Amino acid sequence: MAAPANSTTFPGDVWAELRLADARDVPHIHSLIHQMAEFELLTDLFAATEELLTSTLFPSPTPPPFTSFTALILDLSPSPVVPDSTSTIASRRFDLSASPLADPEAAAFASPRGGGRVTAGFVICFPNYSTFLSKPGLYVEDIFVRAPWRRRGLGRMMLSAVAGRAAEIGMGRVEWCVLDWNKNAIDFYEGMGADVLPQWRICRLTGAALDKYKGNQEEAADGKAAA
Amino acid sequence: MAAPANSTTFPGDVWAELRLADARDVPHIHSLIHQMAEFELLTDLFAATEELLTSTLFPSPTPPPFTSFTALILDLSPSPVVPDSTSTIASRRFDLSASPLADPEAAAFASPRGGGRVTAGFVICFPNYSTFLSKPGLYVEDIFVRAPWRRRGLGRMMLSAVAGRAAEIGMGRVEWCVLDWNKNAIDFYEGMGADVLPQWRICRLTGAALDKYKGNQEEAADGKAAA
Repeated sequence: MAAPANSTTFPGDVWAELRLADARDVPHIHSLIHQMAEFELLTDLFAATEELLTSTLFPSPTPPPFTSFTALILDLSPSPVVPDSTSTIASRRFDLSASPLADPEAAAFASPRGGGRVTAGFVICFPNYSTFLSKPGLYVEDIFVRAPWRRRGLGRMMLSAVAGRAAEIGMGRVEWCVLDWNKNAIDFYEGMGADVLPQWRICRLTGAALDKYKGNQEEAADGKAAA
Repeated sequence: MAAPANSTTFPGDVWAELRLADARDVPHIHSLIHQMAEFELLTDLFAATEELLTSTLFPSPTPPPFTSFTALILDLSPSPVVPDSTSTIASRRFDLSASPLADPEAAAFASPRGGGRVTAGFVICFPNYSTFLSKPGLYVEDIFVRAPWRRRGLGRMMLSAVAGRAAEIGMGRVEWCVLDWNKNAIDFYEGMGADVLPQWRICRLTGAALDKYKGNQEEAADGKAAA
């Protein structure tokens, strides 16, 4: 297919690297979160800022990866990845020659790591806890690949790498959420061995409904309250 | 109503304290988790041990409350609570005289804090992260009250206190899960101002399905993978 004007075309081999993010990645993370909100039809909930992302994801000192909030970046490189033992989580060659890929946003998403790398996705994850297992698990808050890079195996590479790391450090399970209308995602996750739990629903207290519990000064009760 | 043999009856005022747990509370936490598994019809998933609970909930040093896995205990005392600034989260008098309460397990659940206190429930919570808000939130993994103490306002006291603390430390939301058949719980949570999100489903990778991602050594791909 013909590439749009200003697109960068990736005609053959590219090397994908999933790596720990750092504060230099915040502008791209911010843009990717906004694209994710658009995809999920949830832009009304989008309130991320680069300043808040920096202070909450990369505090000083930043805790070790997978012990607190952890951001990972997916970069695609035109040349083989030399793994960095402190930041590379996974790397893999992809041969796009059978179906060359045009990325109209490649210039806007130039990776801060340089070398012609393009940032194509991100992951945010953090530990959760299972009381039934009495063990930590890993919760994947977001896993996102920009549109032109989808359906090439990159999502599978990212989730496989994160699950592998969680299993290796002794976590008992990996969990994430999916929208019930996103059949492609549900099929993909089930194909990777995940169960989609039918019975659980998420409850959320936020905004003014949460703020009213500040300075929770309750009166003595008569024992007749509702629960 | 007549109390069962060996029950302890609470005929009038009791003082409830929600406090930080410590390692001395582990035997009761373990028993309470098992009662919760029975209530949720999920005993097949129960694999908690006192040893694992101790090492995962009370590592040395234990991080500050609400910055990592945090266990709270609900104790009921026959005498007024003197709040401890390092461990008391909330306290409140309950007048049970209109409907005296018989607790057949009061002796088994004697609180390690002594003074005639009885442990009646627990909370496990930890920080999560909202990318749309770019802020931490609080995830309540478990909130549980033993059967004889239910419908007295203790669950409301516990969730209110936890939500209040989360709001005060700047968290953007409080979340938890509910089983879709537990209408009493759903009504209670909605009455407290929570939204029950209809569209999100939890995906879980655990056991053998997770272990297969260990040592994730993938081959180079041809770009035709499913996602």
